[in-house]
Amino acid sequence: MKEVIYKRKVNFYETDAQGIVHHSNYPRYFEEARGYFLEKNNFPYHLVRNELNIDIVLLELTVKYRKFLQFGDIFKIKTKVYFENKYYFSFEYEVLKETNIICTGYTKHCCIDKNSKKLKRIPKQLANIINKGKDQ
Amino acid sequence: MKEVIYKRKVNFYETDAQGIVHHSNYPRYFEEARGYFLEKNNFPYHLVRNELNIDIVLLELTVKYRKFLQFGDIFKIKTKVYFENKYYFSFEYEVLKETNIICTGYTKHCCIDKNSKKLKRIPKQLANIINKGKDQ
Amino acid sequence: MKEVIYKRKVNFYETDAQGIVHHSNYPRYFEEARGYFLEKNNFPYHLVRNELNIDIVLLELTVKYRKFLQFGDIFKIKTKVYFENKYYFSFEYEVLKETNIICTGYTKHCCIDKNSKKLKRIPKQLANIINKGKDQ
Amino acid sequence: MKEVIYKRKVNFYETDAQGIVHHSNYPRYFEEARGYFLEKNNFPYHLVRNELNIDIVLLELTVKYRKFLQFGDIFKIKTKVYFENKYYFSFEYEVLKETNIICTGYTKHCCIDKNSKKLKRIPKQLANIINKGKDQ
Repeated sequence: MKEVIYKRKVNFYETDAQGIVHHSNYPRYFEEARGYFLEKNNFPYHLVRNELNIDIVLLELTVKYRKFLQFGDIFKIKTKVYFENKYYFSFEYEVLKETNIICTGYTKHCCIDKNSKKLKRIPKQLANIINKGKDQ
Repeated sequence: MKEVIYKRKVNFYETDAQGIVHHSNYPRYFEEARGYFLEKNNFPYHLVRNELNIDIVLLELTVKYRKFLQFGDIFKIKTKVYFENKYYFSFEYEVLKETNIICTGYTKHCCIDKNSKKLKRIPKQLANIINKGKDQ
Repeated sequence: MKEVIYKRKVNFYETDAQGIVHHSNYPRYFEEARGYFLEKNNFPYHLVRNELNIDIVLLELTVKYRKFLQFGDIFKIKTKVYFENKYYFSFEYEVLKETNIICTGYTKHCCIDKNSKKLKRIPKQLANIINKGKDQ
Repeated sequence: MKEVIYKRKVNFYETDAQGIVHHSNYPRYFEEARGYFLEKNNFPYHLVRNELNIDIVLLELTVKYRKFLQFGDIFKIKTKVYFENKYYFSFEYEVLKETNIICTGYTKHCCIDKNSKKLKRIPKQLANIINKGKDQ
């Protein structure tokens, strides 16, 4: 599996007074797409958190906005995952309305122990998914 | 002290495609007003949570919308607290832009133990504040 | 059709530091459920807005919270619509996790002209849907 | 004026189930800081929109997260503005809790005509503010 495609519709409460989706919703859409990615790999994030006793932390976020979405629009997010080293991994996102690229995004992550909050190596079960999911 | 007045400005990200503050933000404004109420009584909510080991839970919410707010508007919230019985207490809110009532609200609350999540009598320190704050 | 059932999953960004869905998200879930209701009746809200040149305005909101939702939970919302008179209509909501009632809600609405912002009789196309959807 | 400092407190509804401010709120904090920047220069954004008949559009967003904020925390945002060329300008942000850098951010913007939605040269009144505000 090279990429996962998540489909979504714009909610009215996600729009702003410019009549378009407020830019702060895209990081939330990315989070949904990451969640969907884990789910499609049979390891949803709430299980990741409970079974591996970790939190996945966001270290870096970039969004490049090209076009906008409006209420009623249906869009999809193509998500790819990259395994940077044994501590860090990244996602790349492409938000599309039909064939138009609305925006692109990038996030970088690590895992921390849920209790001590200390950096942890990426657990094997998660690393396996990242390995499968990475662009080949 | 019969009521506390909290002042606030509308953020752009709180507007929607109708060009007004989205209705789901008023419950958030009420939460801010409750926080301000506790703060003015020298017992901010993050201390309430830590020192009394409780969470304050929202049981009921009502909002009646009369007019709307727009980006750039300055508004205030008049907050009154009611001590219903030894378990429950309520807040009433009036959102005003100058002398215009934008909306009114009501919330009902109880306290639960942070760990067991069980209903708890309102702790004395909190009850004292509610007593002082209630409409006489 | 007596009621419409909308299905949804809790997003991580909808949780708060109590570890549960923040109460201000339920009015947003209700909005999604209303949107789904219109959609199932082949008249999605963005078409309502454009074709009838109206905005549907929220006048009143009540939520009664009984239990809570957590990240990863799947829930459904049962939505019923009521036709109060030729100007006002209301929705009732039941948020369920399996067979547990998480919360119930009520919203009251009217239609305004998109340009003049004046109250308008409920347009026939919308009234027909409300008629079909109302509890018999 | 080389930079503007905006002060803020974390709201409870901005936290997530990790017990910290959800990452998607920082772009919103940045927007507030930009608004404060314009306000301190006597040209608040709602006047910019109305008087110059433009919308300021966000083209790019980067956030680097180092530490986290929790409910009850007071933080400040140092904002600097850069005048890239006659069409584009950028802001840099530093979110601080006392002397600790919580995160840093960058946003890039342009102006569009509110009606035609077409790219416009930065209007003189706005350019003057950016000139004053830029790092010297």
